[in-house]
This record gives sequence, C-alpha cells and structure tokens, in this order.
Amino acid sequence: MTLRVTVPDEGWLERLSDLDDRVDLSVWDFSTPQPEGRIDLAVRPYTPTTDGLDRLDPSGLEVLQLQTLGFDGVLEVLPAGITVCNAVGVHEGSTAELAVALLLASQREIDGFARERGQWNRRFTASLLDRRIMLLGYGGIGVEVEKRLEGFDAELVRVAGHRREDERGVVHGNAELADLLPTVDAVVVAVPLSDATIGLVGDGFLDALPDGAVVVNVSRGKVADTDAIVRQAGRIRYATDVTDPEPLPADHPLWQVPGVLISPHVGGMSTAMQPRIDAVVRRQITHLLEGRGPDSIVISP
Amino acid sequence: MTLRVTVPDEGWLERLSDLDDRVDLSVWDFSTPQPEGRIDLAVRPYTPTTDGLDRLDPSGLEVLQLQTLGFDGVLEVLPAGITVCNAVGVHEGSTAELAVALLLASQREIDGFARERGQWNRRFTASLLDRRIMLLGYGGIGVEVEKRLEGFDAELVRVAGHRREDERGVVHGNAELADLLPTVDAVVVAVPLSDATIGLVGDGFLDALPDGAVVVNVSRGKVADTDAIVRQAGRIRYATDVTDPEPLPADHPLWQVPGVLISPHVGGMSTAMQPRIDAVVRRQITHLLEGRGPDSIVISP
Repeated sequence: MTLRVTVPDEGWLERLSDLDDRVDLSVWDFSTPQPEGRIDLAVRPYTPTTDGLDRLDPSGLEVLQLQTLGFDGVLEVLPAGITVCNAVGVHEGSTAELAVALLLASQREIDGFARERGQWNRRFTASLLDRRIMLLGYGGIGVEVEKRLEGFDAELVRVAGHRREDERGVVHGNAELADLLPTVDAVVVAVPLSDATIGLVGDGFLDALPDGAVVVNVSRGKVADTDAIVRQAGRIRYATDVTDPEPLPADHPLWQVPGVLISPHVGGMSTAMQPRIDAVVRRQITHLLEGRGPDSIVISP
Repeated sequence: MTLRVTVPDEGWLERLSDLDDRVDLSVWDFSTPQPEGRIDLAVRPYTPTTDGLDRLDPSGLEVLQLQTLGFDGVLEVLPAGITVCNAVGVHEGSTAELAVALLLASQREIDGFARERGQWNRRFTASLLDRRIMLLGYGGIGVEVEKRLEGFDAELVRVAGHRREDERGVVHGNAELADLLPTVDAVVVAVPLSDATIGLVGDGFLDALPDGAVVVNVSRGKVADTDAIVRQAGRIRYATDVTDPEPLPADHPLWQVPGVLISPHVGGMSTAMQPRIDAVVRRQITHLLEGRGPDSIVISP
C-alpha cells in the first residue's frame, strides 16, 4: 500500500523526509488546481480562510488536514465526501500562553509602558494577586489557561456550558454567568463560536463587571460586541487577539480606545506550532498506513 | 505599655484604625523634622531613596520599617543605633508577576503589537513552550517566578550561589553559569545587587546566549552593563524593570534599541502591595507589644 500525501510547502518535504517508503509525498498549496489522481491526505496551508475549498474534487481527496483548530465556514463550502480533520493539540498551549500574556500585559500596563517609550512614568497598576479570574469556556484552551494561571495567587472561576464538578471543584454553568460576573476582576474568554456565543460579551455582560475589570478574548471576534466594548472605554479594559472583522481596518475606532490592547490573531502563530503540527501529520499518516481512520475528524462524509 | 507608631500618610490611620488601644498612631512622612520624644516604630514612605535618613536621631527612634525589599545605601547613611526592617513578603509575588509579564510580552511581541496600533501585522513569534528558561537568583523573587512559570511547558533551570539539590532537583551554582548560558532561551535575573553581581549581564554573559534569547531583569539596573545590551541589539532581547541610572533619561539610547522593553521600576507597584505592607506593619506592632523584636531586621544596632 502506498499513501499519497500532499503538503503545502517545500519545508514539509524536508521535515518529513524520514517517513516510511510507502508514503508518496509532494507539494500542493491549494492555489493551483487539485493534482490528478487520488490523494489520501492533503495538508492545508496554515490559513483561517476557506479559499478554494469549494473547488475540491471529493473523488480525488480522502482526508483534508487543517492546520487550524477552528473550521469556521468549512462545512458550508466544502463539497460532500471529504473527511476534514482539525489541528487538535497544536494551538491550545500557544493560544493559552497568549491569553495569559495579554492578561498580564493589560493588568501591569505593559502596553502603556511600551508606548510611553522615553518616559519614566511610574504608577501603581493592577495585579493578578488576590483577584478572581473567570475562565469562560473550559475546553482545550481554557484548560491550558488554567494550568498557566495556577501559580499566580489568583482565584480561578471556571464556567462552561453546564454546571458540573471535577477533582478541582465546581465548573459553573452558563446559567450562573450573570451572578458570577459582578464578583470577578478578569474574564478570559475561550468559548467556541456558535449561535449561543455570538455577541455574548455585549452591554449586559460588560455592565455586570466591576469597574476596572479586564476582558481577554482568544475566542473569536464576533463573540464580543465591538460597539459595546467601545462604550465601556475607561471603565473596562479589553485585551484581544481576535476582532470583528479581521483584519481590523486601520481606521477602525477600536484601535484607539483607551485600555484596549489588540494582537493580530497570533494565538497559534508561535514557535510552538511547527513541532506540534508535524507530530499531528505524522500521526495521521501512521493511522492511515495502518488502515485506521484519522484523528480529530470534524467533518465526516 | 504604649507603643508610639508613625505612618507616612493619612490613609494608614484609617486602615489601621482598629488597632489595639495601646498603640499611639500619628502621621510622619520624613519630609519634616523627626517628631519630639521616642518613636517605637516609624514606617517610611514607599521610596527607593535614602533622603533624610542621615538626619534621623537614634535616641528618638527604635525601629525603622521600610516599605521596600531593597535597602541599597541605607546602611551607609543611617546613624548608628536604629533597627531597620525591610518589607519581606510584600513585593516578591508582584515583582515575579511583572517578570513573567515582561518575559511573555517580549516572547509574544506584545510590546510591538501595542506600538503598531492600527496595523494588522501578523507574524510568528517566539513562545515559552518547549524552551529552557534560566532563573538566575533563587531567593524570594526567584521562587515566586518559578511558581508562576510551572504551567508554561518550559524547562526551568535554576541557578543560585552554590550548587545544591532540593526536592525539585538541582539548583545550579554560579560556577556553572558559563556552561549553562548557551543552553537556555531565556534568563530571568533576580539576584541581589552586590559586588559579585554588578555588571554580571555584560558582554561575556550575553555573547554566551544563543541568537534570539531574551533576558528579563527585575533585579537592579547595575546588574546589567547597559552598553553591552545596546551592542546586542537585534540578537538578544532585553525586557527590564530596572535601569542604570533611574529614572532613565528621555534621551538615553536604551529606550530606542530594537527588542528592548522597559517598565519604570514598578515590580512592587501594584494592587498587591497595600494589603501585604499593612499586614507586615500589623505584625511588627503585635511583636513589639508582646515585647519581642521585629521581623525582617536588615540593620541591627
């Protein structure tokens, strides 16, 4: 059995050069027409877009491996008959790390000090010590955020869909959100995008938070109501890796709101990514060679 | 027995208003002459300077309580006969938190994104995942940095004066520094200022680090050789809360070096400070009322 695998650039050929002889490896970056014949596994370039997916030929492609965890819009445009896998385990740690970086930068005003270059402007800032931090969304990223925040002498308040208990205590349910928001000093938002979460961080959510609270968003831009964020200028700080729309236009008012810190959707874009996505692809190849299905299927024909 | 205690501002009177009747509390901020009579405990304003300490009258002052952990220069100017206590337990967590904030900001280029306001400039950055991070100085702050970095999937390399082992493994000695520096991706410097540490982060130290490494300094400005840092521009990043001199003049070249992030000595200046310094002063008062000596004596008559 030979497995035909395409990868999105030459760098992959080198990194995977030690693979099993039964693997026929070639480069396809999805910008050119789908190669003739049957592809067992095609690794998509690292992109959040769905460009070109509507033109794929299911008769020539078995498994599409995304390099992203999110797959917004893929289901809507992809022809039926192709198995899609996302990149579970690749971006969670890096994204959680960025969430903590944004949270700490906002609390300790690192963004302000960076902009005030040349000014020795000492002042008291907020800290995480003694504070209550809500982790809103307790999936792959939320768990990694929790792990990183454990040493900061803050109290963590976990919120997921439904209330449950685990060995660390209570995971609160969404139904308790309104009661919990006034009690926390920070919220890290790591929920998936869904009809239930679009606009979740809106006027009611923000009004319920105490003065000086900070909201960190590593979920999706649409989870927050940008106009509501702007209305809270000076009262609530907002540190976000995601915006609505993306890219955020240069003249968008959110860039200039005091207390708002924006990174350009780089949660997964770190040195942590390459070894992890390589490992995912290697594991998928092993599974397919063994005649098993791939891991992390998000769309199955 | 009545205990006469001075505090540096009115806010303290309110916060300590529930104290024992035997405590006679009044305000003295050290900018006016030392009050007549005997003071059992004088709380110094929160300042890194030694201004006015040379004019103190030891016959009228038993214990001087600093709000800082450092006491650079105090021994040199203080008249003999006064007990000096520093603020152990007040700033370590907050300073360690700032060290991690600076480290994460530098790795994930939060300072760059903050300055590029209006630009959606996506790029891969460094991460802490899989990296080796040296904790140079394993005292009160170093231990708190370690606690905070434990969840980041990095390998921590601890270095103190002399090699030893504890329940977490090896604490390397300074003698191993030259061998260890080429193996780490980041160094958090939290050593005390001493003849042995002045200029420690100099040409030899920096040359030994691999390309792209980051040095975080929450120790003292003089521990780093500023000219050597400038010479490494573009190769080594430097994120520091301390400079030489302080305040760093607006026209100092360090402000403009690429990859250098400066906060204006605010490690302890956070919301974590007040409850902790209040607790220290309360504990000292309790000890003195009980006829015991104070805690955290750094200079004893």
